[in-house]
Amino acid sequence: MIYTAIMGHGTVGSGVAEILIGKNELMNEKICDDIAVKYILDLRDFEGLDYSDKFIKDFNIILNDPEVKIVAEVMGGINPAYDFVKSCLSAGKSVVTSNKELVAAKGAELLKIAKENNVNFLFEASVGGGIPIIRPMAQCLAANNINKITGILNGTTNYILDKMIVDNMDFDTALKLAQDKGFAERNPAADIEGHDACRKICILASLGFGKHIYPDAVSTEGITDISLNDVEYADNFGFVIKLICTAKRLENGKITANVRPTLVSRENILSGVNGVFNAITVNGDATGDVMFYGKGAGKLPTASAVVADMLDCAKHLNARKYLFWEEAYEDYVVIPDENVKLYVYLKSDDFDKLSAQVKSVFGNTAEVIENKFRCEIALITPEEQESVLKEKIGSIGADCVKIMHTLF
Amino acid sequence: MIYTAIMGHGTVGSGVAEILIGKNELMNEKICDDIAVKYILDLRDFEGLDYSDKFIKDFNIILNDPEVKIVAEVMGGINPAYDFVKSCLSAGKSVVTSNKELVAAKGAELLKIAKENNVNFLFEASVGGGIPIIRPMAQCLAANNINKITGILNGTTNYILDKMIVDNMDFDTALKLAQDKGFAERNPAADIEGHDACRKICILASLGFGKHIYPDAVSTEGITDISLNDVEYADNFGFVIKLICTAKRLENGKITANVRPTLVSRENILSGVNGVFNAITVNGDATGDVMFYGKGAGKLPTASAVVADMLDCAKHLNARKYLFWEEAYEDYVVIPDENVKLYVYLKSDDFDKLSAQVKSVFGNTAEVIENKFRCEIALITPEEQESVLKEKIGSIGADCVKIMHTLF
Repeated sequence: MIYTAIMGHGTVGSGVAEILIGKNELMNEKICDDIAVKYILDLRDFEGLDYSDKFIKDFNIILNDPEVKIVAEVMGGINPAYDFVKSCLSAGKSVVTSNKELVAAKGAELLKIAKENNVNFLFEASVGGGIPIIRPMAQCLAANNINKITGILNGTTNYILDKMIVDNMDFDTALKLAQDKGFAERNPAADIEGHDACRKICILASLGFGKHIYPDAVSTEGITDISLNDVEYADNFGFVIKLICTAKRLENGKITANVRPTLVSRENILSGVNGVFNAITVNGDATGDVMFYGKGAGKLPTASAVVADMLDCAKHLNARKYLFWEEAYEDYVVIPDENVKLYVYLKSDDFDKLSAQVKSVFGNTAEVIENKFRCEIALITPEEQESVLKEKIGSIGADCVKIMHTLF
Repeated sequence: MIYTAIMGHGTVGSGVAEILIGKNELMNEKICDDIAVKYILDLRDFEGLDYSDKFIKDFNIILNDPEVKIVAEVMGGINPAYDFVKSCLSAGKSVVTSNKELVAAKGAELLKIAKENNVNFLFEASVGGGIPIIRPMAQCLAANNINKITGILNGTTNYILDKMIVDNMDFDTALKLAQDKGFAERNPAADIEGHDACRKICILASLGFGKHIYPDAVSTEGITDISLNDVEYADNFGFVIKLICTAKRLENGKITANVRPTLVSRENILSGVNGVFNAITVNGDATGDVMFYGKGAGKLPTASAVVADMLDCAKHLNARKYLFWEEAYEDYVVIPDENVKLYVYLKSDDFDKLSAQVKSVFGNTAEVIENKFRCEIALITPEEQESVLKEKIGSIGADCVKIMHTLF
């Protein structure tokens, strides 16, 4: 019998309990052994559940019980999750988590402690909910050098943008709808400002490139400035706007990573990722692009990923999984000045002057849509070094300028 | 040092050698150990390679060398691969293969022998080339009951259909182009008649549902009868034609599986899988739909999947992976009479009679496109039991009838 504990009985934690206890027979079959939940840690009271007898309020009961070999941390947030996880790993217990904030902030340190104590620290559920991505990247793509990771990693923003694109809904209305449907939090900042997506690309990039990438090194922009106007111009150019996360290995071995609203060409399969779905494209030097797609959140998808990690720990109680990255050196993450094609939106009181300026700067090299009535011009630039393009755009002298990157 | 052998130095085998020998340092890093290729078995001579000294022509050298712990079988075909693999497993060597024909025909037996000898038999490369699918299904989705697997599993046919859809090319021209580009064999039967796709869905379904599904139990139809006409009608109804493989668990625990050209709604993400790409959607009771996408063939993608399996064996030399299915009982695979929506193409010399008959049979319940000039009618039926629909279609009395299933 293998004993486990669940720390946190919120959305994900109750899902983990539901699967491990409710589908116990199937779980035992999968690991050719018996697995049981011994404790569930939560400060709240949960009465009337089949497994109400398992609840405890004192973390030390888990820590000091040598029978508990596997602990699922599904509380979220850095504190006290960080201390609890560190203590469990140090005590020789394997830990599984869905906590992206924790992994993005403390991954390298916790993986090191796990390695020193010959236990596992797994976090499949921290990115993409139920979509298998951490294990495939670590194992199935092991024969590859990873070149680039591109993803739609936040279902809330993808849902909002989708509503703007398909139903012509403005941002505020779409956000309100997402909140009403339970896809967005009452305080939606972490989602719409890109921080949630940023944590996830940090985890994937750390794993893919082998060194820890911290959220504050990743240039992060949310979707709050996207207007219906942008959505329409993008559509006319053959693009849809998505919140795209990218991490890329440069020729000098350094990494560039960012989260930003991006015009995605309709030819790119990521343009077809709608609603609350997530998708991650990984480019390896042997496999080329492989993509993983599915619901990026939700109780049972996320819980099923936590449980899969717990089963993996149970099957390999004495064999550590080779999931690892180390601390990075200074200036590991950089912002290179590369060739790009940009979407540019310009507005000016003097439309004729604006139009003449655009022509004089870009000639026939840009795709241009003019709207004289609204004194606006939208364009897709030719491919050129980013700094040069931005200087050119600045020289046009519009009253209002908005710039977004493109993805083909 | 962990010694390995490669059986077969064709497209995939030479890729495996290239990665294992050429990127040896990276490979060693991944497994925290040293891995080396000791032998390459091939009846042909290969001179002038960096590793020409490793070639042997006698299988028994591998079999009788106790130092060789991991063998990659990348010869293809059933014979002699089957005997070789059986002998290696029985001799306590782990075997990794990209051979879908072998796994589809002998998987249950070989998995049993591997289990009895406490070694691994892995075959990530047998489905979807470099796309991670076998391991994610076995491990990441372990907390799920798999309900349904749907996939585009053959890149050659997808390329041909794509050319028909996008470039309005007829079937023969598209096939010729695929052959010229190296995407189709000189003898393309296994691809265009659906047998290759059939083997792959057998492997996925055996893994997903736990019992071996043999190719001859799967109703298999190729794409040779698809005309440009069908492609155009499909387009007008909002569909694209894809060769779709499906395996589904029925309420009684039995399985239904098939390979057939299918009208896929443009709303379904599989409709956007173009060119030689493959995609597999797995529906689990906890995760919902997750999709895996990438190049389904090619030297390096496939070889990288073989190498990843070899690395996994190297890391777990004494720990068997729980990848297993057993022999099925009789009548495990059935053809149920379910509710479906069908695409129907009808042609008759007497167009007016045909049109009147369609109206009398379907009234206003079908979407209908009439082409009086060509004496043709195409329609999408309402959803109804398949046998009932087919009886109705038969009663129309057209000279020429073509029926395809739909996927939304």
